[in-house]
Amino acid sequence: MFIQRLSIIGVGLIGGSLARALKRAGACGEVIGCGRNTNNLQQAIELGVIDHYETNPARAVKNADMVVIAVPVGTMANMFASIREALSPQAIITDVGSVKASVVTDAQQHLEPHFCRFVPAHPIAGAEKTGVVASFAELFENHRVILTPLSETDSQAITMVTTMWETTGAEVINMSVEHHDEILAATSHLPHILAYNLVNTLAKMGVQENIFQYVAGGFKDTTRIAASDPNMWRDICLANRDAILKMLEHFNTEYTQFYEAIRDGDSKRIETQIKLAKTVRDSIT
Amino acid sequence: MFIQRLSIIGVGLIGGSLARALKRAGACGEVIGCGRNTNNLQQAIELGVIDHYETNPARAVKNADMVVIAVPVGTMANMFASIREALSPQAIITDVGSVKASVVTDAQQHLEPHFCRFVPAHPIAGAEKTGVVASFAELFENHRVILTPLSETDSQAITMVTTMWETTGAEVINMSVEHHDEILAATSHLPHILAYNLVNTLAKMGVQENIFQYVAGGFKDTTRIAASDPNMWRDICLANRDAILKMLEHFNTEYTQFYEAIRDGDSKRIETQIKLAKTVRDSIT
Repeated sequence: MFIQRLSIIGVGLIGGSLARALKRAGACGEVIGCGRNTNNLQQAIELGVIDHYETNPARAVKNADMVVIAVPVGTMANMFASIREALSPQAIITDVGSVKASVVTDAQQHLEPHFCRFVPAHPIAGAEKTGVVASFAELFENHRVILTPLSETDSQAITMVTTMWETTGAEVINMSVEHHDEILAATSHLPHILAYNLVNTLAKMGVQENIFQYVAGGFKDTTRIAASDPNMWRDICLANRDAILKMLEHFNTEYTQFYEAIRDGDSKRIETQIKLAKTVRDSIT
Repeated sequence: MFIQRLSIIGVGLIGGSLARALKRAGACGEVIGCGRNTNNLQQAIELGVIDHYETNPARAVKNADMVVIAVPVGTMANMFASIREALSPQAIITDVGSVKASVVTDAQQHLEPHFCRFVPAHPIAGAEKTGVVASFAELFENHRVILTPLSETDSQAITMVTTMWETTGAEVINMSVEHHDEILAATSHLPHILAYNLVNTLAKMGVQENIFQYVAGGFKDTTRIAASDPNMWRDICLANRDAILKMLEHFNTEYTQFYEAIRDGDSKRIETQIKLAKTVRDSIT
């Protein structure tokens, strides 16, 4: 057992699955859950995901040696401010946010003197389901967790967070904050925004009958992620604004060229683009 | 048995699955397959999907009472011209193309005097896999098949094609050619084009490492349809040009508004759009 007292702030899909995986591995002692929804927290106890709960974050982090903050990125700043005074001098703090620059800035402003023990992290796993009921111990197996430590981040804290995630079956890799945010804008944030806009385009078409009765498997797969948690994704859009806008512009360039190829009846260009997409997609397992 | 001699021109996923379903139901006698790839046709015989094959379409339709044309929509005109002389006077001809206006125009020009027995059809089912090896008898169960007969289409021919598709477990509905092409542009063609452009946007990003190593399940689901058959989809883009361009413009309006909401940091507007998408997507089963 290497974590004596684990505090999970936000016992949802990610926080709950992490607690389950660590418990299953016997890697942690007492697990304290924290959140605002007491029904969810009560369920988390009944499911054996956490041992106790607190609705007050400051109480939840008391005496914890590991604090995992798994709340929407837009609420990070307030959360850091709420727990700062109550943190133990040796506590390691980490998060699971899908955006890292905004979280690091929030931590710099609101987590001192604990900032050097804050290890920014992002497990690349998830689902469109939410809440502790959706959590499961295997969620992170064979998935990646990206850490974006800064030069001042304590190396022992990095090692502890790395070991914690490796215990869940994940592969841990390190990169810069900026690179993380750029990569996630491309691989995750852009696809979500396309899915939202695809669903909404059809919803607003104003055909007489329900157009969604004609969709097949392809449409359903393509838009599955549009069912993700709206608050979390609103926050991501705002927090990773610059990288996302850049990606939306890249996509728009590509899309406009495709539009023009169809408009011009340019068979060769359409075929080249579709074949490139197929070759690349076929290579992703 | 209601089809004595069934001719399937193009023994791929759709043509092969139709033949399997009709054979399973005992709804057809001899099945003649036709195509250019003799390996695929030989496989179709070995799998019991067809009884004989011909590489010459005119020979394949001889004495057939039902001819199903399952080739990319860009090759329909030539195919109609190739079989016209060889068709029996009572033969019913149908297709499975994803676009109907272009196919109907091609049939009008190249299928006389058989045009009145041509029933334009489109089974709303498919997969990103191709060839007879991907075919299976259950493909159409609980899926829809849209027929777009014209006023001059023979009612007995419509009834036969309807019965044929119902035998596979599909639900058959009728609508106008124009309405079909508009609905498919929205529910199928637009999602494919978004998937192609999403994959290609990332492929062209020029980051140092392979960016696709960071994708998770959401991206994979969203882009699964980008692996579909390129020739078929090039043809669809060209054949349904006007309806697709209109849909691409609708999407672009939506997308631009979302872009502006992020650019302006308009939290409320972002949230409204994401919540609309989630509500609509949650309602699709």
